[in-house]
Amino acid sequence: MKGRENPVSENITYTHGNVSLDRRRALLGHGPATVWFTGLSGSGKSTLAFALEAALADRGVVSYVLDGDNIRHALNADLGFSPEDRVENIRRVGEVCKLFTDAGQIVLSAFISPYAADRAAVRDKHPPGGFFEVFVSCSLAECERRDVKGLYQKARSGAIPDFSGVSAPYEIPVCPDLILDTATCSLDLCVTDLLSCLEAAGVLAGSPPVSP
Amino acid sequence: MKGRENPVSENITYTHGNVSLDRRRALLGHGPATVWFTGLSGSGKSTLAFALEAALADRGVVSYVLDGDNIRHALNADLGFSPEDRVENIRRVGEVCKLFTDAGQIVLSAFISPYAADRAAVRDKHPPGGFFEVFVSCSLAECERRDVKGLYQKARSGAIPDFSGVSAPYEIPVCPDLILDTATCSLDLCVTDLLSCLEAAGVLAGSPPVSP
Repeated sequence: MKGRENPVSENITYTHGNVSLDRRRALLGHGPATVWFTGLSGSGKSTLAFALEAALADRGVVSYVLDGDNIRHALNADLGFSPEDRVENIRRVGEVCKLFTDAGQIVLSAFISPYAADRAAVRDKHPPGGFFEVFVSCSLAECERRDVKGLYQKARSGAIPDFSGVSAPYEIPVCPDLILDTATCSLDLCVTDLLSCLEAAGVLAGSPPVSP
Repeated sequence: MKGRENPVSENITYTHGNVSLDRRRALLGHGPATVWFTGLSGSGKSTLAFALEAALADRGVVSYVLDGDNIRHALNADLGFSPEDRVENIRRVGEVCKLFTDAGQIVLSAFISPYAADRAAVRDKHPPGGFFEVFVSCSLAECERRDVKGLYQKARSGAIPDFSGVSAPYEIPVCPDLILDTATCSLDLCVTDLLSCLEAAGVLAGSPPVSP
């Protein structure tokens, strides 16, 4: 495998399809969006993402969750947790988000994504208004108290190196599109905030469809 | 970056969402599918994929083309054309197809994908009936005559090494789901065959929706 540069760019031609984003919006009944959940392990990223996915389905909107652990089982199964691999992990996920939104879809990504520069790079791949950084705010103490997967205990014992917030950095978003405090807000309230955010941005229609 | 193994599998938990594939099918009005176009450079893979994407949109179905050159500009911009990089190129694209079909979508991939083993590996990621290998059959002589991008000329002169069909192998599919001969069949006829294939498999409803 070569470096990050494009080794053969002069022989590659970018092709655009004939189905525009406006046409996709008209057919799907919603706009494209990447909703990017970032926060410490145990903060509630995946729980929020899957809850939003279900709430969107209740409104007739099909979306899809890219979950950190799931992607590491497949697309990024070759990557570990070194700083270099974390960068590549987020770069690839960002490109997948870009593909889903190019397709007109709503994609929900749930990754620790500890580095601000990596998150900014993903945002920069998207058109304005197509990327929503959601900071899942929860104190390290609370995440460690929850320790749903027992990972903090392993990190403290040294069994897991490079653990964000414990032995590796987590850079808090300076200007996220939304902050959700999962220590004090209910899941329902967080989902309502997320739906409002997508409505305000015009991704979703202003109110749920009413059955005849 | 480490090898292809999963270096931290014991600390990763696979999570399933709450929106089933059946629910997605009901909401979208079609089933999930990966339509995998394989063939020599210049055989017509991208042309067919984009034509199918447009024909599906005319039936109200949103799909998305993963095009070899486009993916090499982004997700796989770090990969070249060595045998190892070709394998990794197709592996990643296969995983992206899997994500789209998990999301309930129809994804159309247009890659030379010269190795039968790599194509089989992508098929194996999909549930039965979710993957359609389409062999875009066109003789090397005809592809070279077309030489739309001028690549065969460069390959013959040695300016491009490892060129499938010229200086690198292309393994013809032994048992594809569909064979389309772009030297003798019109684009419209090929698209009709593709739609029939998706209808027969139950991915699409049997006939186009009729306007009231």
